[in-house]
Amino acid sequence: MRAVDIIIKKRDGKQLSAQEIDFFVRGFTNGDIPDYQASAFAMAVLLNGMTNFETTDLTLSMARSGQALDLSKIVDVAVDKHSSGGVGDKTSISVMPMVAACGLPVGKMSGRGLGFSGGTLDKLESIPGYRVDLTTDEFLTQLKEKGIVLTGQSLDLAPADGKMYALRDVTGTVPSMPLIASSIMCKKIAAGAQAIVLDVKVGNGAFMETLEEGRELAELMVDIGRLAGRKTVALLSDMNQPLGSAVGNSLEMIESIETLRGGGPADFVEHCLHVAAHVLLLGGRAKDLAEGRSLAEKSIADGSALEKLRLLVAAQGGDASYVDDLSKFERAKLIEAIKAPRSGFVSQVNARTVGEASVALGAGRAQKGDPIDHAVGFLIFKKVGDAVVEGEILCEVHASDAEKLKDAHEAVLSAYQFSDEPVSPLPLFYE
Amino acid sequence: MRAVDIIIKKRDGKQLSAQEIDFFVRGFTNGDIPDYQASAFAMAVLLNGMTNFETTDLTLSMARSGQALDLSKIVDVAVDKHSSGGVGDKTSISVMPMVAACGLPVGKMSGRGLGFSGGTLDKLESIPGYRVDLTTDEFLTQLKEKGIVLTGQSLDLAPADGKMYALRDVTGTVPSMPLIASSIMCKKIAAGAQAIVLDVKVGNGAFMETLEEGRELAELMVDIGRLAGRKTVALLSDMNQPLGSAVGNSLEMIESIETLRGGGPADFVEHCLHVAAHVLLLGGRAKDLAEGRSLAEKSIADGSALEKLRLLVAAQGGDASYVDDLSKFERAKLIEAIKAPRSGFVSQVNARTVGEASVALGAGRAQKGDPIDHAVGFLIFKKVGDAVVEGEILCEVHASDAEKLKDAHEAVLSAYQFSDEPVSPLPLFYE
Repeated sequence: MRAVDIIIKKRDGKQLSAQEIDFFVRGFTNGDIPDYQASAFAMAVLLNGMTNFETTDLTLSMARSGQALDLSKIVDVAVDKHSSGGVGDKTSISVMPMVAACGLPVGKMSGRGLGFSGGTLDKLESIPGYRVDLTTDEFLTQLKEKGIVLTGQSLDLAPADGKMYALRDVTGTVPSMPLIASSIMCKKIAAGAQAIVLDVKVGNGAFMETLEEGRELAELMVDIGRLAGRKTVALLSDMNQPLGSAVGNSLEMIESIETLRGGGPADFVEHCLHVAAHVLLLGGRAKDLAEGRSLAEKSIADGSALEKLRLLVAAQGGDASYVDDLSKFERAKLIEAIKAPRSGFVSQVNARTVGEASVALGAGRAQKGDPIDHAVGFLIFKKVGDAVVEGEILCEVHASDAEKLKDAHEAVLSAYQFSDEPVSPLPLFYE
Repeated sequence: MRAVDIIIKKRDGKQLSAQEIDFFVRGFTNGDIPDYQASAFAMAVLLNGMTNFETTDLTLSMARSGQALDLSKIVDVAVDKHSSGGVGDKTSISVMPMVAACGLPVGKMSGRGLGFSGGTLDKLESIPGYRVDLTTDEFLTQLKEKGIVLTGQSLDLAPADGKMYALRDVTGTVPSMPLIASSIMCKKIAAGAQAIVLDVKVGNGAFMETLEEGRELAELMVDIGRLAGRKTVALLSDMNQPLGSAVGNSLEMIESIETLRGGGPADFVEHCLHVAAHVLLLGGRAKDLAEGRSLAEKSIADGSALEKLRLLVAAQGGDASYVDDLSKFERAKLIEAIKAPRSGFVSQVNARTVGEASVALGAGRAQKGDPIDHAVGFLIFKKVGDAVVEGEILCEVHASDAEKLKDAHEAVLSAYQFSDEPVSPLPLFYE
C-alpha cells in the first residue's frame, strides 16, 4: 500500500477501505507519511467528501492512534457531553455536577478557548490551584472515587487528531464535515465514552453558522457514534446570541455556580436542565427526559449538585471556598454599564461580535499560548426579544484599562440591534 | 498576504490574482511556503481548476523563479519545439538539424526518459562523449557559433517547476491540465523561446490518452503562449503505436541518422517533415507550410542536415564518426526476429505495451537515476494497417540476456492485434 495511491483514490472521488484509512492514519501518526501527503489528502477529502462509513473508519483509526481509555471497569456507563463551542457556553461546568449528583459518574476532557469561542479549562482556572493537567491515572482514580472529573485532554489521546488539526489549520482544510466530525468523535471515543450527548451550536457565534450545516454535522456525528457502537444523541442549540448572561472566565464561573445554587439566567438554566436530562437518559439514570429533568432540578434544589462542584474543585487542587464565596473571584478594575441608545425591542445581540470583543478585552486568545485575563468580559442583561427603554442598562463591560473599555463599549453596542416592532425571543434549541 | 488564504481562495473555486500566484510561487521556491501548503494548493488546483489567465500567471511566475535566458541578442527568433513524450519519439534528433540547416538557429533543452516514455538525452548519450550538461554560457556560445544546441535542462531553469513536479509526483497531483501545461510552458519561456511548436502526443503510449484531453492541453498551452506573448502552435499527433520503427536508445539514434541520410521509416520521415515545416514557418524562414516542407526536404537531399548533426555532436564532445559509421553504435548481444502468429491485418501495436517492454529490457528507467542499457530495444517493422502472412517477421527484439529476451518476446507479441478485415493505417496527425 502506498500513501500516494490512497490520495489518488480520494482525489478521484472513490471510497476508501478501512484498511487504507488506517494505513494513512498510522503512517501519518508515526511520521512515515509526511505532512505534504497528509495535506493533499485533507484537501481531497474536503473537496470530494467522505461517506459516513469512511468518516467512521477515520474516526476509529484516529481514536486508536494513541492510548485509549477503557472506563468499563470503573463505571457502568461512561457518558460524555460535547459542545461544539460558542460564546458564553459554560454548560459543562453546571451540567457535569448536576449529572454526577444524580449518581451518574462523569469524566470529561475539555479544551481551551481559541478565537472568539471560550474554553472550559480557562474558565475553571479562574479558581486558583485548579489543575487541568491530570494524568491518566489521576483521571481514572478520581472518576472512581469522586464520580466527577473535568480536566484537559491528555497528550496521548488521539495524537493523530492533534497533528492533523495543526496541519489543517495552515492548509485551508478546516471546514470539512468529515474532518470536523471525526476530530470531535475520535477524542470522545478515545476517552472511553460509551454514551455521548452532542450539543451542536448553530449561529453567528458558532463554527456552524446555518441550521443546515449544524444539522449535517449533528447527523454525521450521530451516525459515526452509531456505526462505532456508541449511544449518541445530538442537540441543535442557538448561538446567535451569547448563552446566559456572562461572557468571560471568572464571570462565567460565577454564573455557573449561581445556577447550581438555584439562580442563574433563565435561558442558561433551561439549557442546562435540557442537556442534563439528555445525559441522564442516555446514561440510563432516567427512563425518559421528563424524569431526567426532574432529577436534575432536584440536584439543584437539594444542594447535591453544588456539593459535587465543591468536591470536584477540591479534588483537582482548587480552592473550594470560591464555590461558597463568589466575592473571592478576581474582578476587573473597571466596570461600566452600557445603556440603551433608544427604546424598542432587542432584535440582535451578535454572539460573534461579543465573542471577539471579549477576546479583545483579554478574556480569550488570538494565538495559541497567549496569556488571558480571567477577570474581564461582559454581562449581557438584555437579550433578543426583550423590550428596552432609552437609557436602560443593556449590559456591563468588565475591563482592565480605559482604552480597552472604550473599544469594548463600542463593540458591544455594535452587536446590538433594535426594532420598533416586538421581536420573538430566539429558541434555545432547534431540534 | 498569507499562503493559507491563497489556498482557501482556490479551495473555494475563486480566481487568483497574478500577485497571489506570484506570492505563492516565490514563497514556495525560496522555502517560505512549506511543501504541505504547496501540496494542498496543488490538490485544490487539480480539483477546482484554473482559468487560462491564472494558468498563464502561474507559468510566468514559475518561468521567473530562476535564471531566464534572453536569446534575443543571439538569434533573430528563438524557436523551440516540444513533444509531450511517447514511444519511439526521436523527432528532435532529426528535426533540429534539418531546421538549423535551413538557417534557423535552434537551441533546445531536453529531458530524460521516465516510465514508458523515452528521453532525447538518453538517446544522444548513445554516442560516446556527448555532453548533455552544457553550462548556460556554453549553451549561448554554441547557439551563436554553431546554430544548434541539444542539451539537458540547466539546474537554475524554472526551479519552482522542478520542486513542484517532485511534490506533485508523490501527492497525487500530476494529472491536472493547468499544472501540466504550466510545467511545460514555463521551461520553454525560461529558456528564452519566442516561438514554440508543441507536438502533443495522443494515445495509449502518451500521457494524454484521448484526443479530447490532448486537444484540451494543446489549446491551453497555445493560450498560455499567446497570453505570454510567444508565438505558439500545437500539433496533435498519434501515439497509439510507436513512432517510426526503432524503440530504444542506440536504435533510435541510428534511425534518426538514417532519416537525415534520406532513409528512415516513411511514417517517421513524414512526421519530421511536418514538424520541421511548422518550426520553419513559425521561425519566419518559410512563408507557408509548403515552403517549410520543401526546405526541410532539401536539407536532407543536399546533406546539410546531416552535416548539422555532425557539427552538433562534435560541438558537444561526442564522437562525430558515429554519424557516418552506424556500425560503431553499441549493439545488443541477442537479436531475435518475432514472426506473425497468424495471417491478417495488423490492427494494433500497443505503444504503451512496447514502451513498458523496452523499459523491462533495460532501455528505460523505472525510477529516476536508474542506469540504462543503450543497446537494447525493438525494431517494429509491421504497423497498424499492414497485411501480414503467418511466419512473416513483425519486429525484432534486441536484448542483453536470454531471460529478458523471452519476456520481451511475449510482451511485444501481446502488443500486437490482428484482424481478418483490412485495417486503415493510423493517422500521423489529428489536427
